[in-house]
Amino acid sequence: MTGDPAAPPLSATERTRHRRLREQGRADRAELFAVLRAGLVAHLGVLVDGAPMVVPTGYGYDEEHLYLHGSVASQSLAGDEPLACVTVTVVDGLVLARSVFEHAINYRSAMIYGTPRAVTDPEQKRRGLRCLSEHLAPGQWDYARQPSRKELAATKLLALTLDEASVKIRTGAPDDGDSPDARLGLWAGELPIAAVWAEPVPDTGLDADTRLPGHIAGRVGEPVYPRPAS
Amino acid sequence: MTGDPAAPPLSATERTRHRRLREQGRADRAELFAVLRAGLVAHLGVLVDGAPMVVPTGYGYDEEHLYLHGSVASQSLAGDEPLACVTVTVVDGLVLARSVFEHAINYRSAMIYGTPRAVTDPEQKRRGLRCLSEHLAPGQWDYARQPSRKELAATKLLALTLDEASVKIRTGAPDDGDSPDARLGLWAGELPIAAVWAEPVPDTGLDADTRLPGHIAGRVGEPVYPRPAS
Repeated sequence: MTGDPAAPPLSATERTRHRRLREQGRADRAELFAVLRAGLVAHLGVLVDGAPMVVPTGYGYDEEHLYLHGSVASQSLAGDEPLACVTVTVVDGLVLARSVFEHAINYRSAMIYGTPRAVTDPEQKRRGLRCLSEHLAPGQWDYARQPSRKELAATKLLALTLDEASVKIRTGAPDDGDSPDARLGLWAGELPIAAVWAEPVPDTGLDADTRLPGHIAGRVGEPVYPRPAS
Repeated sequence: MTGDPAAPPLSATERTRHRRLREQGRADRAELFAVLRAGLVAHLGVLVDGAPMVVPTGYGYDEEHLYLHGSVASQSLAGDEPLACVTVTVVDGLVLARSVFEHAINYRSAMIYGTPRAVTDPEQKRRGLRCLSEHLAPGQWDYARQPSRKELAATKLLALTLDEASVKIRTGAPDDGDSPDARLGLWAGELPIAAVWAEPVPDTGLDADTRLPGHIAGRVGEPVYPRPAS
């Protein structure tokens, strides 16, 4: 898997240099965006009173930034923004080996380090919120009622630059296929997860003639965490 | 949703008191275990050189402890174990409202705070690893080759007590069904995620007569993130 050779590589700082599972590290911006495209929620890690706090939250992104709802971290990120780590993980399946020791998980994961900046300019905020909305629910920004000036002011949006990141991916079979355990005669392989968008559940208050719009209907049966075309 | 009234409630320390989205907080051990049962991986947040690091990892649990593979945090948790936050999140669907502002995510999440302790006693380690293995891949501990003494020694296992935790759950319809936006005539509701175990992919090296054991075959088509029976 390779990306655009003209794109700058992900930084290899002390933090994102892979000290462990080096063979699973990918230093390529295309792979970072593939994980961001595939994922749905992120886990934001921040310091609160000297202790780590990990909060799940939706996210969006553009070429340069990751966007998060600021409210999720309101208690910690009210003032000076400290360094944060945001991790996006997609779990693809279980790796069932011959030995318990070699069991593993197939997954795609991106860790992004940065200092969250509160987006205050209304136009930038609108653009960032649109990224967030379109990542989670493509088509809804134009279909639903867009934020009023008051709602926009009431929404906190955080942006992190995508300068410092690390991607890890594990795919495929267990690693003990050529070990002595392969002679045990045990079944081994992958147990994949299939996650698809299910039938929409209409709000009970809808008028009987309210039609499901095509941008929602078109997702039904589609994978929630798409794999990049190979 | 209520749990065993005899079980102690989850602690309400300064950290786990819900300062936000209070209506989504559940202070009940039964709900903590329901989230732990439903989830597959956790996001472990620890401090590394003063900055937060969030790492995805499989987990297991018993009545008193959460267990994590110590290797995931080897660079940070080698010496004195600092406070950690471990968050388990299941994403159940998107909440598509009439306004972008009211869009949300249906999810189940548990945040556990604790000081990870390295489990060194071989019997305790074996028990903890069995919890971890059985949570992810029930039946594999007895089916696959169990850890040798050498493998056991090479495995780092961390345990956190389940004393300080907070659970948040969002289910159901959007919140703007009784707002003026309900008159816009827009479709609104939930777009759920259906995640099931898919067809197992046998390792290419298996003998042709290696049978798929029942404890794996029985998972196919079953939900990956089961909802508690209501």
